[in-house]
Amino acid sequence: MNASPALDFREQPARPLVAQQPCRIALLGFGTVGRAVATILQSGSFPHLRLELIYNRRVDRKRVPWVQPQVRWTDDIEQALASDADVVLELAGGIEPAYSWVKRALLRGKSVVTANKKLIAAHGPELLELARRQGCRLEFGAAVAGGVPVLCGVSPGLSGDRLLRLCGILNGTCNYILHAMESRGLTLDLALREAQQRGYAEADPTDDVDGLDARAKLAILVRTGFHLQADPEQVAAQSVLRVQPADFRYARELGYTIRQVARAELKSGMLLAEVGPALVSPNSPLGSARNNQNVLITTGQYGGETVFAGAGAGGAPTAVAVVSDLLAVAASRPAVLAGPALVAVPVSNDFRCRHYVRVTPPQTTDAVGALRRTLTGRGISLRGLLHHPDPHDRRPSLALVVEECSTQALEKVLEEVRQTGVLAEQALRMPIVTSS
Amino acid sequence: MNASPALDFREQPARPLVAQQPCRIALLGFGTVGRAVATILQSGSFPHLRLELIYNRRVDRKRVPWVQPQVRWTDDIEQALASDADVVLELAGGIEPAYSWVKRALLRGKSVVTANKKLIAAHGPELLELARRQGCRLEFGAAVAGGVPVLCGVSPGLSGDRLLRLCGILNGTCNYILHAMESRGLTLDLALREAQQRGYAEADPTDDVDGLDARAKLAILVRTGFHLQADPEQVAAQSVLRVQPADFRYARELGYTIRQVARAELKSGMLLAEVGPALVSPNSPLGSARNNQNVLITTGQYGGETVFAGAGAGGAPTAVAVVSDLLAVAASRPAVLAGPALVAVPVSNDFRCRHYVRVTPPQTTDAVGALRRTLTGRGISLRGLLHHPDPHDRRPSLALVVEECSTQALEKVLEEVRQTGVLAEQALRMPIVTSS
Repeated sequence: MNASPALDFREQPARPLVAQQPCRIALLGFGTVGRAVATILQSGSFPHLRLELIYNRRVDRKRVPWVQPQVRWTDDIEQALASDADVVLELAGGIEPAYSWVKRALLRGKSVVTANKKLIAAHGPELLELARRQGCRLEFGAAVAGGVPVLCGVSPGLSGDRLLRLCGILNGTCNYILHAMESRGLTLDLALREAQQRGYAEADPTDDVDGLDARAKLAILVRTGFHLQADPEQVAAQSVLRVQPADFRYARELGYTIRQVARAELKSGMLLAEVGPALVSPNSPLGSARNNQNVLITTGQYGGETVFAGAGAGGAPTAVAVVSDLLAVAASRPAVLAGPALVAVPVSNDFRCRHYVRVTPPQTTDAVGALRRTLTGRGISLRGLLHHPDPHDRRPSLALVVEECSTQALEKVLEEVRQTGVLAEQALRMPIVTSS
Repeated sequence: MNASPALDFREQPARPLVAQQPCRIALLGFGTVGRAVATILQSGSFPHLRLELIYNRRVDRKRVPWVQPQVRWTDDIEQALASDADVVLELAGGIEPAYSWVKRALLRGKSVVTANKKLIAAHGPELLELARRQGCRLEFGAAVAGGVPVLCGVSPGLSGDRLLRLCGILNGTCNYILHAMESRGLTLDLALREAQQRGYAEADPTDDVDGLDARAKLAILVRTGFHLQADPEQVAAQSVLRVQPADFRYARELGYTIRQVARAELKSGMLLAEVGPALVSPNSPLGSARNNQNVLITTGQYGGETVFAGAGAGGAPTAVAVVSDLLAVAASRPAVLAGPALVAVPVSNDFRCRHYVRVTPPQTTDAVGALRRTLTGRGISLRGLLHHPDPHDRRPSLALVVEECSTQALEKVLEEVRQTGVLAEQALRMPIVTSS
């Protein structure tokens, strides 16, 4: 660590903002996602996003002490809609009364951010048109795939392509169930109960397991990606409830695993679309989805396949999508003077990780012994040593794996060893990069 | 196919547009990406994006007959910058003269779209500030990861999170080389020559193999994701040129493969960043990247890991990113009256694919024989049959795999068989979903 600690990221807001106009938020629905949004809004990262009001039915049982005292709590929706909020954040879910609330908010000139897939699948175009007429924004990035930014990935991200196929895992509950059946041999009933205990599945999981949730999301993706309006109720949906451990055994024997897949394809003037359990390759992006992950694979005429994958369910990831939408709405308001300021930062490559080191010792010396002694002297441990020379190698080499250590410390040792002349050529160091 | 062919997608523009104001484009640089952009612009999908002028040095050798006759060709940059284009599309690459051209275009009040990572890494903030002052847009979605929409995925997509780590494969040429060494045992020299022959690597591949290209992209990602300004030249870069087949042998023995990895991490007030060959798990998103693919994995405080993967290099995928930016610029112009119109579409689930079918025959009848005869009578072939009952199953089942066929035809057969009473319970049909 040879650079000065110029910044303390724990103290500093992640996005220092220049003259950003405040954006006042009324939050409707203080459930899992609502609480996670409030947590992010209170983190100090986005000081211009101001939570002003929280509405919930029987709000008193919802109050939490960590919400700032200036936030108003109410169970009177009229008060919430009549507040001076710039943005109404609808997290109640379901079609009614969410539909009336969103419409009334837009009619009052308030922008709306929502995570409500049912509402957007059923009434999206009409509400977007109303928002446009009112000069407001309606954003729903959290409605599909939770924290994975698939909607903005598809448009504007891939709007320059001509998408031909959408295929994905859009329901975290089903993925949790099927992954648990695959990896731990649970029955569907047990896996479903576990998903409920962990808060992934509702008390009534019908919408998830029967594919109704995924097909609402697929209809939204079809609209965004194909610019076509498909009635979600026309999309065939098969329940995952009939999948048995025997199906996983057979699938494995065939080289597959099972996931709830939602897919749509344009073919001869028709939209092919369905949601249901499907066999997928275990090493494909679909088969690799674990626990409550979501995945979307788009296929475009020009760009080929693009994969988006990540945390598709749960309060915190969904809240990320909601806050991203709030930021977009805030940034689109007229009086914003400038975007976030950039902070210059010192750069170092002093990652701490395990490393692979290939050395080419001259045949005559104990280079490995010398290297090992120097490493140990600097507190760096050897984890393993490989030596299987290819008979065609003119200069046989050895590979070492060293335990997690400072990159710069290791580079220093390798340089010292090089200078002693015990290596025939400079060592090759490569970090071993694993997921966090 | 029981729905009427109401739409012919081959004829119809993918995005029928309502009263979209034309957006005139001057294209600077008619290389691989420039030609691919012109191809998309002339496809009829985006009629409001009008290519008006193509600039290139010694333009006569660049002329192609398929560009519409009203497009002007010029080798006079003054004429290009003085044209009445609304958007200048800079695809020349490198810092100069691209920097002067972009600056002059912005000063003339023209928006700019560019795929130039070097320019944006070196001068992005200054050019963005100039664009803001001029009331123009500067878009550079194609500068990082080509056709994979990572920049808009990071912001606005994940702007509501607090990103802690960025890790990815950002250079398609190096990935092509390392994947060829891994999968076909080529030496680095041979793999590099092959990449050059296929047009992935330049005649002078220094920027790619030494990591200078990837670190420019990493610096742009650091700015977008961390809101920090890092000098690309401060980012340590190690060449992939020293990787040998022996390293792949050792890596495989250790359970890894090798990729050129670019990564950045916030740690105690410092930016850790480096680019170079690294050991990665072969089943991870990094290790799964084949040929010229790109991958980005973001790690956020709230949303965890998000993966973006796809075609990161090549003319057509990069052109998708460029056209997406052109569409965003066109949509932001004041006189746009409405977005793309939505077309209602008939929906069917009649995908053609292979299927898995699990049946539970009563012990006494030849259900499989009956099913096979009915399938064959409808032109559906059996590909395989599995029967390994679990001793605990009360009702032993069989799994069939049928060759690619119409989903609806198969469902009809299964329903017929069900009605004959030869199955103890309804068959479970699941499609086998493979990549396109």
